[in-house]
Amino acid sequence: MTLRAIILGAAAGGGLPQWNCGCENCNLARRGEIPAQTQSSLAVSPDGQNWAILNASPDIRIQLGNTPLLFPTGLREMPVQSVLVTNGDIDHVAGLLTLREMQPFTLFATNSIHDVIAENPIFDALNASVVKRRPILLNEPFELVTNLTATLFPVPGKVPLYLEGEHVQTDLVGEQTVGVALHTQGKSAYYIPGCAALTPELRAQLDGADLLFFDGTLWQDDEMVRTGLGQKTGKRMGHMSMDGPEGSIAGFADMQIGRKVFVHMNNTNPVLRPNSAENAQACAKGWTIGRDGMEITL
Amino acid sequence: MTLRAIILGAAAGGGLPQWNCGCENCNLARRGEIPAQTQSSLAVSPDGQNWAILNASPDIRIQLGNTPLLFPTGLREMPVQSVLVTNGDIDHVAGLLTLREMQPFTLFATNSIHDVIAENPIFDALNASVVKRRPILLNEPFELVTNLTATLFPVPGKVPLYLEGEHVQTDLVGEQTVGVALHTQGKSAYYIPGCAALTPELRAQLDGADLLFFDGTLWQDDEMVRTGLGQKTGKRMGHMSMDGPEGSIAGFADMQIGRKVFVHMNNTNPVLRPNSAENAQACAKGWTIGRDGMEITL
Repeated sequence: MTLRAIILGAAAGGGLPQWNCGCENCNLARRGEIPAQTQSSLAVSPDGQNWAILNASPDIRIQLGNTPLLFPTGLREMPVQSVLVTNGDIDHVAGLLTLREMQPFTLFATNSIHDVIAENPIFDALNASVVKRRPILLNEPFELVTNLTATLFPVPGKVPLYLEGEHVQTDLVGEQTVGVALHTQGKSAYYIPGCAALTPELRAQLDGADLLFFDGTLWQDDEMVRTGLGQKTGKRMGHMSMDGPEGSIAGFADMQIGRKVFVHMNNTNPVLRPNSAENAQACAKGWTIGRDGMEITL
Repeated sequence: MTLRAIILGAAAGGGLPQWNCGCENCNLARRGEIPAQTQSSLAVSPDGQNWAILNASPDIRIQLGNTPLLFPTGLREMPVQSVLVTNGDIDHVAGLLTLREMQPFTLFATNSIHDVIAENPIFDALNASVVKRRPILLNEPFELVTNLTATLFPVPGKVPLYLEGEHVQTDLVGEQTVGVALHTQGKSAYYIPGCAALTPELRAQLDGADLLFFDGTLWQDDEMVRTGLGQKTGKRMGHMSMDGPEGSIAGFADMQIGRKVFVHMNNTNPVLRPNSAENAQACAKGWTIGRDGMEITL
């Protein structure tokens, strides 16, 4: 075993149920008829002892409380060595506020994402004397946690919603939205919770991967509009959808990837209903629908 | 019935268990041997239909999901009309980030607390076109929710930890830490989740109240030091303790208050163990130990 990964949260921002949403999925989750899912986060470890958390979701306190491998090992000793954030979205950074409490760890992000965080004095709750903010260059390997090397690479995306101006480019390729490559003993795993398009560069990079966690925000591009919950398409939100000719299921169909797992699923996504036709369809195409607490080893 | 109050979260910042804490209480809560408690928040309503949330804790999504009275009443209709924050501490404002999603409500706070929030662009996630930030003057009644009037008043406290400078005054009386008075049909309820000292002014104001929710952060002033978890006393953190001659139990002993409920309890507080001697002692002195989900009507 060279990599253990635990999905701490399989849902996109808002979670399942989302606080103010009365859609079918959210109501089913409130009634316990389908499993509730917390917001986007993945824990990874090369040995089961030392862990990195990829994205600090607003639900991180509950997520850690549900994950015995991440419990404190002493009065204030933690198996979590580092936290990495892949963009500045609230579902990926708000949990940093929970990680105050004078607990040492390293916070990894690109310079651009570190800047977004630093513009908010509230994140000074992460005392600089114990939490080291380390900027990571694109495509430069670094030690994510002892004995596990990672590389950040750009994927098409946009700036966080709360920083959007009048004109929003939704397929920016740069430091604001990144994927994570984990290389360990000749095997490779990728974590890409947000991705606006499967570019030729990305296809080339991911082909042959042993494990992929990929953006499963929406089933259909106009899902929010159809369900009467918003006016934005998936594309406008910087996410490619699962279904359709431009979707991720079709996009990855001809590629060699050992295991493909959807994460970051919006509460409207029908695959979150275990008995839905869409869930069956995605599984039939070789995808695993991620869920909270799911562990995958490589 | 003129007031319904539900304790959404009975714990102080960090919650029970706190993510990185291996103290006795946190370990018991992780093992399910004592009830876990989420972070500081109270919901109040004059009619059970329209609600205000007092303090937006980081756990607010989970708290709302556990409280059927606060479930959406339609696709995007909510019984929550307003949110009020009593200081700028992370345990009281971080949940505002969860309340994004284009849901209309009014955000009440003093000007000073609004300023603390506004200094952080991440809170622009609360779109100004739907979330109205309304500044409230001290000692001026306002409509908190339809048919429920509230007044904010200063209580001794300090600025949020993440804004502390080199010299920290822990008994500031002004706009940075407030209590909430609720007056309804001749009865009065008070909510004071943080309070550094019981001043003569505060005693005069609270004497004769029908219901009081009060700061129960620590049992003993040096509790964090004794348990090896920190170097700060309760006083340094801006909280009076329950026990001792200067504590809240002694301080309120000679006052006429209909019902006294401790909230905002730190994970180290022994009253969080239902069978502890300290819990029994507080109850014997006429206090109720708040817990998540407890409803109190007036």
